[in-house]
Amino acid sequence: MKAMEEKIRKEGTVLPGGILKVGSFLNQQIDTEFLKEIGDEIARLFEKEEITKIMTIESSGIAIAAAAGMSMGLPVIFAKKHKASNVDGEILSTKIHSFTHGNDYEAVVSRDYLKEGDRVLLVDDFLASGNALDGLMDLAELAGAEVAGAAVAIEKKFQGGGDKLRVRNVRVEPLACIEKMTDTEIIFTDNKR
Amino acid sequence: MKAMEEKIRKEGTVLPGGILKVGSFLNQQIDTEFLKEIGDEIARLFEKEEITKIMTIESSGIAIAAAAGMSMGLPVIFAKKHKASNVDGEILSTKIHSFTHGNDYEAVVSRDYLKEGDRVLLVDDFLASGNALDGLMDLAELAGAEVAGAAVAIEKKFQGGGDKLRVRNVRVEPLACIEKMTDTEIIFTDNKR
Repeated sequence: MKAMEEKIRKEGTVLPGGILKVGSFLNQQIDTEFLKEIGDEIARLFEKEEITKIMTIESSGIAIAAAAGMSMGLPVIFAKKHKASNVDGEILSTKIHSFTHGNDYEAVVSRDYLKEGDRVLLVDDFLASGNALDGLMDLAELAGAEVAGAAVAIEKKFQGGGDKLRVRNVRVEPLACIEKMTDTEIIFTDNKR
Repeated sequence: MKAMEEKIRKEGTVLPGGILKVGSFLNQQIDTEFLKEIGDEIARLFEKEEITKIMTIESSGIAIAAAAGMSMGLPVIFAKKHKASNVDGEILSTKIHSFTHGNDYEAVVSRDYLKEGDRVLLVDDFLASGNALDGLMDLAELAGAEVAGAAVAIEKKFQGGGDKLRVRNVRVEPLACIEKMTDTEIIFTDNKR
């Protein structure tokens, strides 16, 4: 998605530690007109996949997942970090390591909303080491649901998470894919779209 | 919004401790068709208020704020809990007590996205004791921004937070307002819409 690359070039900044800051439009402030375009693009990419549900994890993926859900006319479920008091009944849970925060956390989802027979599209803002998406795949597996693919706003390919998923035959669709990143330059993987 | 009351009557359940569970459509699983209606209704309620920005706090308010932002053509900012490594520069911060989780946390937002001259609409899923919205008002005040009002999916009026805000002359618009709640019954405040 050329528009995502342009947006990153124009508004993104690289912070120490290999963090790409896109707070102006994606994960602190949301450009809602652009968010609609993101939702429509994800819908276009996966329109033939017979998805039944979109799944993300709180919190930066929620807006993107909601936009995709609105474009596709599908419900969205978001896994929570830690068990909250408003999650009752049987829960599915898995441990995820956070690259951004440097700690482990429990991701949980109620079994009521993720079922055998569901064909799930995973959505997130970033795909770096792939730990969050790995965790969502675990939750889908625990529920007996099938993963139809993963759509992410930005893949940091040099961190390897996307390719780990591709090796497992997951269809991974980044809207922008960063091959290499230095403090002064962002190089995107060749993009045919 | 009659549709919100009907949805709560049909799908909501009361958990011990005065927790209303609406996970099937609002804060674990999101009914995205209904989410669009919520966004449109918030846009309708505040269309004359010359809002410049929508503000919420992670994570259950994000989808609603994003939907309202898409309906209104406005950017959304969401305050984060704790300082994340992808929030740099000058941050505004305030302490909030969580009714759901029974603890305190820091809510932060970058000063880059909240400015003097902004006219902010606060959005959240629930308004109970009002602590989250109070915290968002603190952040707006720290930034020198004006609060034009608050739109919440569900107000639990008996917990007093909404009326505390109204006393401070904040325009509070719940899409459904619960007067009283027992384990078996949910009574809504008289609704003219």
